[in-house]
Amino acid sequence: MQLNTDKPWPHNAWYHAAWNSEVEAGGKPLARMLLNEDVVIYRDVQGAAHVLEDRCCHRATPLRLGEVVEDGIQCGYHGLIFDGDGKCVHVPGSDVIPSRARVRSYPVVEKNEIIWAWMGDPALADESRAVDFPWNDDHENWPHIHELLEIECNYSLLIDNLMDLTHIPFIHRNTIGGGDQSGQVNATMDVTPTATGVHYIRWMLDIEPPPTYKKGAGWADDQRCDRWQEFEYVAPATVKQWTGALETGRDAYGSRDGKEGGFNLRLYHGVTPRTETSCYYFFTAHNGYAPKAEGATEKLNKDIVFTFHEDLAFLENQQACIGAAPGREMVNTKHDVALVPAQKALEAMIDAEAPRKEAAE
Amino acid sequence: MQLNTDKPWPHNAWYHAAWNSEVEAGGKPLARMLLNEDVVIYRDVQGAAHVLEDRCCHRATPLRLGEVVEDGIQCGYHGLIFDGDGKCVHVPGSDVIPSRARVRSYPVVEKNEIIWAWMGDPALADESRAVDFPWNDDHENWPHIHELLEIECNYSLLIDNLMDLTHIPFIHRNTIGGGDQSGQVNATMDVTPTATGVHYIRWMLDIEPPPTYKKGAGWADDQRCDRWQEFEYVAPATVKQWTGALETGRDAYGSRDGKEGGFNLRLYHGVTPRTETSCYYFFTAHNGYAPKAEGATEKLNKDIVFTFHEDLAFLENQQACIGAAPGREMVNTKHDVALVPAQKALEAMIDAEAPRKEAAE
Amino acid sequence: MQLNTDKPWPHNAWYHAAWNSEVEAGGKPLARMLLNEDVVIYRDVQGAAHVLEDRCCHRATPLRLGEVVEDGIQCGYHGLIFDGDGKCVHVPGSDVIPSRARVRSYPVVEKNEIIWAWMGDPALADESRAVDFPWNDDHENWPHIHELLEIECNYSLLIDNLMDLTHIPFIHRNTIGGGDQSGQVNATMDVTPTATGVHYIRWMLDIEPPPTYKKGAGWADDQRCDRWQEFEYVAPATVKQWTGALETGRDAYGSRDGKEGGFNLRLYHGVTPRTETSCYYFFTAHNGYAPKAEGATEKLNKDIVFTFHEDLAFLENQQACIGAAPGREMVNTKHDVALVPAQKALEAMIDAEAPRKEAAE
Repeated sequence: MQLNTDKPWPHNAWYHAAWNSEVEAGGKPLARMLLNEDVVIYRDVQGAAHVLEDRCCHRATPLRLGEVVEDGIQCGYHGLIFDGDGKCVHVPGSDVIPSRARVRSYPVVEKNEIIWAWMGDPALADESRAVDFPWNDDHENWPHIHELLEIECNYSLLIDNLMDLTHIPFIHRNTIGGGDQSGQVNATMDVTPTATGVHYIRWMLDIEPPPTYKKGAGWADDQRCDRWQEFEYVAPATVKQWTGALETGRDAYGSRDGKEGGFNLRLYHGVTPRTETSCYYFFTAHNGYAPKAEGATEKLNKDIVFTFHEDLAFLENQQACIGAAPGREMVNTKHDVALVPAQKALEAMIDAEAPRKEAAE
Repeated sequence: MQLNTDKPWPHNAWYHAAWNSEVEAGGKPLARMLLNEDVVIYRDVQGAAHVLEDRCCHRATPLRLGEVVEDGIQCGYHGLIFDGDGKCVHVPGSDVIPSRARVRSYPVVEKNEIIWAWMGDPALADESRAVDFPWNDDHENWPHIHELLEIECNYSLLIDNLMDLTHIPFIHRNTIGGGDQSGQVNATMDVTPTATGVHYIRWMLDIEPPPTYKKGAGWADDQRCDRWQEFEYVAPATVKQWTGALETGRDAYGSRDGKEGGFNLRLYHGVTPRTETSCYYFFTAHNGYAPKAEGATEKLNKDIVFTFHEDLAFLENQQACIGAAPGREMVNTKHDVALVPAQKALEAMIDAEAPRKEAAE
Repeated sequence: MQLNTDKPWPHNAWYHAAWNSEVEAGGKPLARMLLNEDVVIYRDVQGAAHVLEDRCCHRATPLRLGEVVEDGIQCGYHGLIFDGDGKCVHVPGSDVIPSRARVRSYPVVEKNEIIWAWMGDPALADESRAVDFPWNDDHENWPHIHELLEIECNYSLLIDNLMDLTHIPFIHRNTIGGGDQSGQVNATMDVTPTATGVHYIRWMLDIEPPPTYKKGAGWADDQRCDRWQEFEYVAPATVKQWTGALETGRDAYGSRDGKEGGFNLRLYHGVTPRTETSCYYFFTAHNGYAPKAEGATEKLNKDIVFTFHEDLAFLENQQACIGAAPGREMVNTKHDVALVPAQKALEAMIDAEAPRKEAAE
């Protein structure tokens, strides 16, 4: 989508800050930059996750260089300690704690293995708005691995990428997009705007499955299938995916519920802006076709990571190209039918914040 | 010369974009940045060279990541195909091609082994204005090798370098400028402005030749010579060189035409701005003294490449020094007698474009 | 201290440009950037040190690429020679030297093994204002080694670091700050503003000495001591340090003069701004406790260099954190009691220059 450089993102939203597995109780703090703001993420000794600005209020030293102690996180320079709300609770060698001694604290929700941070007005933080992705909690039926890529592109380019799948037979021609190019670009496309973004599903009926599908489902070489790609974008920066196929004749198009076998996987995509030209790409690929097969989830994960690196190369070059002439038009094709409402949903969310957070500071 | 940062170069001119040997019919596209503009250079399957902007009009993806196909160059992201004029001729999976779907195409002339691109108004592109250097077509009598250096300096600093040869006994004291320092800085200098730039010739009569000349001409150790350095600058960015010597007594000064033997070589210098602070330096060194001797041309080329790297080190440091204080005066000496009219010719060409191309866009 | 980005430093002051040992008579010129200005430092063939701007007035080529010759420093591009006052005294191949052909020359004082350069108005250069550090001249009783670190931080952050020693038990917890944390942060602190900056002394009476002290003084494991840390900041950028301890009972607090034994060392800290976000840190650590012991000075120096690298890691991260939000407040604690008057002394020196040097140029 066109990058909105004035207002690159909404602030009043939950953003994926870290996987729950990235920080442990009382352990090493984790530094991250979210929406151009340096934050430090840690768990206190009781195990609660906190997100603070990564700057001691005393001498502007990053708290990431400090350590978690009994009462909070301690700066590594002169030893000031801050609690989870950002309040200074100790100055070594001094009985007096200056009243202005505090750092910004960001509201946190931990859910579905994700540490979400609210980057806008804390008074507006509403836990119920954090995206649901219950499959992250179900390792038995939907085994998966926490992944994170840092990509040098605006976060919205990654969302664009997921909204137009006709890129698959081109970028991924040697991997998941091999085989019948025409079938892949000519799939039917059913798009539905939602309250929080857009939903679409693409159907490819009675086609030859890609090699990865055959292998995953244990199909014979001449097996044909009905294949679907179902995506939901939830603004500002989450995409839920359900992809799969059943053997031709089992009427997947009519109903997929409760039909065992075939090939299917779910993907969680969480994109968090780092700067205007870089982002974090959190994802999990859930093995729904062979959840108990030894090594199958690791193999799936490895293939997905490889495939996403193919996208990464394009996204970073695309960002550089846009950066060289930021204002220029992009000419849409008929395949941008989901991308356009996704962009509108994001823009509406940004526009709803005027006067915006930065201006108000 | 003083760098003109507001108007760093003329646009309505042919610039050396590539050697003809750098792209093959239907082969891999070549990315280059000319005058701050990203372009992609390729040959179609029929063999014609094209220069397009390196940005697909759909999602701003560099076309360099695509490939040349039957109908043109195909973007690697969603598969749009553009012909040599920059018109989109195919959108995979769609019968409709948006009318605005096109990329900028630059006029091209291929001549003397050079692919020239016209960077300004296409309506003004005049093939007859592309510089002639016929020796590039004569490998039998003037064997040579295509060379290209990328230098982190403004293109005009390289032209300055070629307009004042008193640098030779300093920068090149260990190579072509060894020996009699005083003789080299005290050469006579005959300067003539031309319609397109400036011509000069330096004569050093009855001097001891440098070691490379002796070796090239097969001279005895005590042989003396009349030596010349003849240069023509053609604005904006070409320099033609003819350098040589005949034995003292053969009256080279009176006439060099048709006199065999001695030492002589021609050099083509094509400088193309990349950005305000970087350029491409295309050159060929033509062995006119031993065109049939085995290995002689390769040896000459190796020596010239080494020598030009000596210049490169100075030019890049000079650029950094200018960049630290762009507006400061440079104090000319008597040796800037060719540099000054060269600078005037370039400035006149830039000024003739007001209102300039960018402003008009 | 808060970084003053508009007026980052005073110009009318002596700055430590180099150690006397860094340039030799007639030897290779040394390039350095002082206060954002590129300079070249060299000794002429008679041995006098000079500091010139590092830019030939002819073609803006750095003089560092040239060499020292009989009459001065010669540019490596076209051979112009400049004397120690910056005047051009020779143009090869020309009888005429343009009257404007000169480069800026900076006043120099060489004292206490330091080459000091005056970066402001030459008419105001007053040799008596160069800081005294006579221990640099006394290698017999105060042996030491010339050291230099380049740090990517504003010079004032390094001064801050030296004005609040409660950082020692945190940053240096594994080296000089090991042991009794509470004793170190609770030392008494006696601060006295001076005409040129601020002086302070911290006393820790009857405490257990750190391991390095015990080893240096040859003390038994259970020996206790009276320990002091005496610092003087001289604006803009020098800190003199005297640190040591005597055995408890010898009344070090009453008088340290003429009492042999114990542990004591002096440190010279010379900080010179390179840019707003980088500086040179010149220092010497003087072994006053075992000046004749073989290897003792080298061991001390190695430990100090290691310790200062611990500071460097914090300072560079602190700079990055400040750079991300330059205008933000820093909240002082009671330990900033010496830092605050140091900052005031520096600011007064900067303010005294209005209208400042750059504005006047």
